[in-house]
Amino acid sequence: MESYLIHMNGHGDHPAILDVHVNIGGSGPAPGKGKGRKPRWAVRASEMSKKTFNPIRAIVDSMRVEPNPKKPMISLSIGDPTVFRNLPTDDEVTRAVKEALDSGRYNGYAPSVGYQSCREVIAASYSCPEAPLKAQDVILTSGCSQAIELALAVLANPGQNILVPRPGFSLYKTLALSLGIEVKFYNLLPEKSWEIDLKHLESLVDEKTACLIVNNPSNPCGSVFSKSHLQKILAVASRQCIPILADEIYGDMVFADWKYEPIAVLSTNVPILSCGGLAKRWLVPGWRMGWILVHDRRDIFGNEIRDGLLRLSQRILGPCTLIQGALEHIMRHTPAEFYHNTLSFLKANADLCYTALCAVPGLRPIRPAGAMYLMVGIEMEHFPEFENDMEFTEQLIAEQSVFCLPATCFEYPGFFRVVITAPEEMMMEACARIQEFCEQHYQGSEVAQDLECDK
Amino acid sequence: MESYLIHMNGHGDHPAILDVHVNIGGSGPAPGKGKGRKPRWAVRASEMSKKTFNPIRAIVDSMRVEPNPKKPMISLSIGDPTVFRNLPTDDEVTRAVKEALDSGRYNGYAPSVGYQSCREVIAASYSCPEAPLKAQDVILTSGCSQAIELALAVLANPGQNILVPRPGFSLYKTLALSLGIEVKFYNLLPEKSWEIDLKHLESLVDEKTACLIVNNPSNPCGSVFSKSHLQKILAVASRQCIPILADEIYGDMVFADWKYEPIAVLSTNVPILSCGGLAKRWLVPGWRMGWILVHDRRDIFGNEIRDGLLRLSQRILGPCTLIQGALEHIMRHTPAEFYHNTLSFLKANADLCYTALCAVPGLRPIRPAGAMYLMVGIEMEHFPEFENDMEFTEQLIAEQSVFCLPATCFEYPGFFRVVITAPEEMMMEACARIQEFCEQHYQGSEVAQDLECDK
Repeated sequence: MESYLIHMNGHGDHPAILDVHVNIGGSGPAPGKGKGRKPRWAVRASEMSKKTFNPIRAIVDSMRVEPNPKKPMISLSIGDPTVFRNLPTDDEVTRAVKEALDSGRYNGYAPSVGYQSCREVIAASYSCPEAPLKAQDVILTSGCSQAIELALAVLANPGQNILVPRPGFSLYKTLALSLGIEVKFYNLLPEKSWEIDLKHLESLVDEKTACLIVNNPSNPCGSVFSKSHLQKILAVASRQCIPILADEIYGDMVFADWKYEPIAVLSTNVPILSCGGLAKRWLVPGWRMGWILVHDRRDIFGNEIRDGLLRLSQRILGPCTLIQGALEHIMRHTPAEFYHNTLSFLKANADLCYTALCAVPGLRPIRPAGAMYLMVGIEMEHFPEFENDMEFTEQLIAEQSVFCLPATCFEYPGFFRVVITAPEEMMMEACARIQEFCEQHYQGSEVAQDLECDK
Repeated sequence: MESYLIHMNGHGDHPAILDVHVNIGGSGPAPGKGKGRKPRWAVRASEMSKKTFNPIRAIVDSMRVEPNPKKPMISLSIGDPTVFRNLPTDDEVTRAVKEALDSGRYNGYAPSVGYQSCREVIAASYSCPEAPLKAQDVILTSGCSQAIELALAVLANPGQNILVPRPGFSLYKTLALSLGIEVKFYNLLPEKSWEIDLKHLESLVDEKTACLIVNNPSNPCGSVFSKSHLQKILAVASRQCIPILADEIYGDMVFADWKYEPIAVLSTNVPILSCGGLAKRWLVPGWRMGWILVHDRRDIFGNEIRDGLLRLSQRILGPCTLIQGALEHIMRHTPAEFYHNTLSFLKANADLCYTALCAVPGLRPIRPAGAMYLMVGIEMEHFPEFENDMEFTEQLIAEQSVFCLPATCFEYPGFFRVVITAPEEMMMEACARIQEFCEQHYQGSEVAQDLECDK
């Protein structure tokens, strides 16, 4: 029908206009595939799938080397606290799932944003006077990854940009590019315990900036922002009118001397989508139980963002109902001791690792304050054999069978990330092997020593 | 910088051209938000979230009426077999999850496409000589919804179209529009037990058609395609070189006299992504365990589609690891009796309901052969009080407290869908009330009776 109309126009007085009509409609036949030709098989993966890219996977795949067969492999690469079997979840957590299972009440569909009762429980658990939450402010998701995906998908359109920490968790970029959203990296400052370079952050804001991602406590840095630093971040967001996506999956996972503040508690006006979940604090990342907390006291998001999140949640529905059914028991009955023990263990490992690596020539570890990671700077000028952090970590596998992720995975070359969830003896062994590796490859030079003296 | 350029143009000789430049570039500042101006809060939900639309929700929300307080509500609206508590899953299924939980081995992250062992189990369960499957042909997903989402997202680009059954499950359209993919509906023929109108189907194919969705057994129809009909569908796909997305979540759920054939078993060349899961056959839709089976014996998908699915799976990772950990036990040890009992129950209800509604003036039920649904035609000419199926079903709630979904939810006005999972007595009571309702509102007419005689 349309092609008939176009044909008629083509014989009219204004042939130049024809093209415009054909193009604007967007429904003209593709070149070489018009009707009448015999179809051929040509199935191509979508542009979206091609834009979806996991840098860690690509980097790790590219650096596949054989570990030293004489030394058992120690992999400190994956942010999964369960891999060494030394950090089981609490008995109350498994009991809760068993009860949900036995009740037979959690086999059916839940609402796409989660059971009302679960939303109430999460709201009650995270509500505080400065940042009150009700059930309708909570959306349950299939892991924190889906929480971040929904938050990004509701806040940003293709062609807009988001502000992302560097170094930072690679999923932000993976999801953004998948959705056609541009990524602008703002710098974290290792010399200031990975605080945000606020001037750099603010300089990146433009009229297309849809949101600011703040990850605290940080993966890969293990850093925890102070109250005053969070207030300064909020001041930038407030001045520039940029909503915040707070990745707080490591919320409350801070060591004894530090205090964790959810950023929403400090916000007087900036609207915030805070993403969290059971994964890390309860040591069950595979269970895929995440959530979004909507903080919007000035009604800037209004109904529109909530409605958008609801709509998007209906695409694949929410998390496994068995885990939803267990949520109330988990939040109410997990003993304080469990959280405490996890953090004591992590702090002891962080201290051990930090101290050990401080003594290694050519390495500059940055002391973590929470989460499960430690970032280590490599003085590349002292390791002239290696081009970059990827070659350094690759050779560390080949010689010492110790696997740490090169921080190129986090857009931060010249560092590597250590996961500190392994048993203490394994951490010690890993540090000893890293030391041996560095001592064997370290090359002091006069220039380098001069630089050292300048510090 | 750009705003400066535009400003200059605006004072130039061709003010009419200014608009063109601003629009074509698409990168000019949003009105009132240029640099230099003071930013203002203006957070809007994304286009994607606005395009994501669940028609069932919209329709059901719009028809919210009070049920008759004198009659207890009977809701036959939701395709969730667990709501009446009369269809628990099998003990082996719950035992399997408990064992996975107790083992402590399924708390960590699985690969984004699922554990290798689970992929092997699913491959072995669904492999057959005509359509062999290996582990790498299986991708585990967060429910069949995510399976369909990934399959659509890898096969189609924005601006392309997919062919979708009418009547059909509303999620196809919801997901497609959310991804910017156009939907073309092909007709199912109620008078031929909901077989596809193949001529209509083929007439819809154009150079932008990215895939054909075949849903068998069908929601909402409860129909099951014969082998020869499936072969004819494959012939169309083969002639037009269109891959098939087979929604087979009700696979194997067919009544005793019928045989279910996975469409891939009959395909010699058409590449197929078959979506399934535990939801319906194992009566645990809330657990969100789905999968994609990749059938591609002629290597038409090649590595590209598999790689695309892998990439897309990394956006939010896969299903809950506890359920993955239970999968092998579930597939191996669920007794045949369990499946048999479910189907006997559903068939008895289908027969009961079909027979009862056949006797109701003005209704034309179509006998189902599987799944959990029955579609009922409304001879609207005999119910002149009601404008359409929505008003009909709305008034049925108001007078009789029986809730069936108007088939407008499935793009098929003039019908309603009955869920047949309720206990037998409840189904009988519902049918009796529907009968009373129709008898009260039915208006025979000479014209109508003449038409009846012509049948």
